[in-house]
Amino acid sequence: MTLHLQKGTATMSLESHYPSDCPFCRISEAYPASSGSPIPSAPDPTLVDPNAFVILSSDHILAFLDILPMTTGHVLLTTRVHHEKLSEVPIGPTAQALGYWMPLMSRALAKTLDIEDWNVVQNNGARASQVVPHVHFHFIPRYPDGRKPPSKKSKGDNFEVKSWKMFGRGQREELDEEEAVALAQNIREALKREVEALQKDTVKL
Amino acid sequence: MTLHLQKGTATMSLESHYPSDCPFCRISEAYPASSGSPIPSAPDPTLVDPNAFVILSSDHILAFLDILPMTTGHVLLTTRVHHEKLSEVPIGPTAQALGYWMPLMSRALAKTLDIEDWNVVQNNGARASQVVPHVHFHFIPRYPDGRKPPSKKSKGDNFEVKSWKMFGRGQREELDEEEAVALAQNIREALKREVEALQKDTVKL
Repeated sequence: MTLHLQKGTATMSLESHYPSDCPFCRISEAYPASSGSPIPSAPDPTLVDPNAFVILSSDHILAFLDILPMTTGHVLLTTRVHHEKLSEVPIGPTAQALGYWMPLMSRALAKTLDIEDWNVVQNNGARASQVVPHVHFHFIPRYPDGRKPPSKKSKGDNFEVKSWKMFGRGQREELDEEEAVALAQNIREALKREVEALQKDTVKL
Repeated sequence: MTLHLQKGTATMSLESHYPSDCPFCRISEAYPASSGSPIPSAPDPTLVDPNAFVILSSDHILAFLDILPMTTGHVLLTTRVHHEKLSEVPIGPTAQALGYWMPLMSRALAKTLDIEDWNVVQNNGARASQVVPHVHFHFIPRYPDGRKPPSKKSKGDNFEVKSWKMFGRGQREELDEEEAVALAQNIREALKREVEALQKDTVKL
C-alpha cells in the first residue's frame, strides 16, 4: 500500500501517531531518536516553530524546555508517540522509559540548577489544567527565596511556594531564548553524566 | 552478625529502609508484598495509626488513599523502600515499577470514579510543598462542576480547577473512613481488572 501524505489523506494510524495540530508531535517528528546517545549534542532549536530546546530524544521519551516556564529550568518530559492522557500510555517500553527518565531528569535538574526542591506535575484533561493534549510531566524547580528568580526578567517572588497557584494561568512568561540555549546545554550535559554514572555502576558489579 | 532491634541499635541500613518516624515506611512495614497478587483483597486498615486504606502492595510500590484528600479518590502512590525525593529512586526495578503502575492506577481511578480529568503531582522538598519525606505521587481526581464533591461533607466548589491552590494548605479535609473502605475496595477491584486485561493481551499475542 502506498502512503499518500497529502493533506487529509493520511491514514488513521499515522494521524494517531502524529496529529498534525499537536505541538509535541511536531517536536517528536523534528527530533527523531538518534542511533547514538538519547541525549543530543547540540540540537538546532529552529527546526520547529516556536523553537524547541531539546534535552532528551530517546526512542520513547523526549524532554525540552517549557516555552512558558514557571521558573528557570522548567522542563517538560513527554512520550515520543501521541497519547493524550497518562491512562493511555501503554504498559511496555514507553511506561518503562518514563520510570527510567523521571529520576534521571530530577538528578540532572537538581545538579544543573543547584536546587533541592522541585515539583513534578502531570495534568490529564481540561479540568486538571491540561493544555497540550499529549501526555507530559512538568519538572518545575523551586528556588530558595531571593536566589535565582524564574528568569532574568522576573519581577519578584511570584513563584514562591506560598503563591503556587494553579497551572497554566498567569505567572508564567516567555522563555528567554538566549538563556534557553545555554540552559538546555547544561541540562543535557548533566543528564549525560547521570547516564554515564549508571553505566559505570554496571561495569563495577 | 546478629541484628539487635533494640531502640537506638538498629543498623544504618535498616534505619534507611524504615526510618521510624516515616508514616509511609510504617505502612510499608505493616503491609508487606504478598506472594500472590500485588493488589490485596481486603487489607485491614487498622494495622497502622492513622488507618491506611491500601490499594496496592507490590514488591516495589504501594498505593493508598490520602488521609487528607483534596477530592474523593485522592490516592498516593509511593515506593516500598524509603527514598526522600524522586532523584533518589534507584534506576532498576523500582523505577520500572513506577512507570508500570502510574498508567494502570490512572486507568483504575478513571473507571472507578467515572472521571476524565485528574492531576498527578509529586513534590520534592519543603519549598515544593513536600510534607512526608518519602517519595510519593498524588493522584487527584477532578470532577465536573456540580458532580461528586470532594466528599459527602464537602461545602461546595472549593476543589474546582479555578481554585486549585498550592498543595498541603487548606481546602483538604479528613478522610471519611466509612466511605474510604468502599472506595478503596472499588479502586482495588478496578486495578485488578486492569492487570488482568494486560495478562489477557499477552496471552492473545
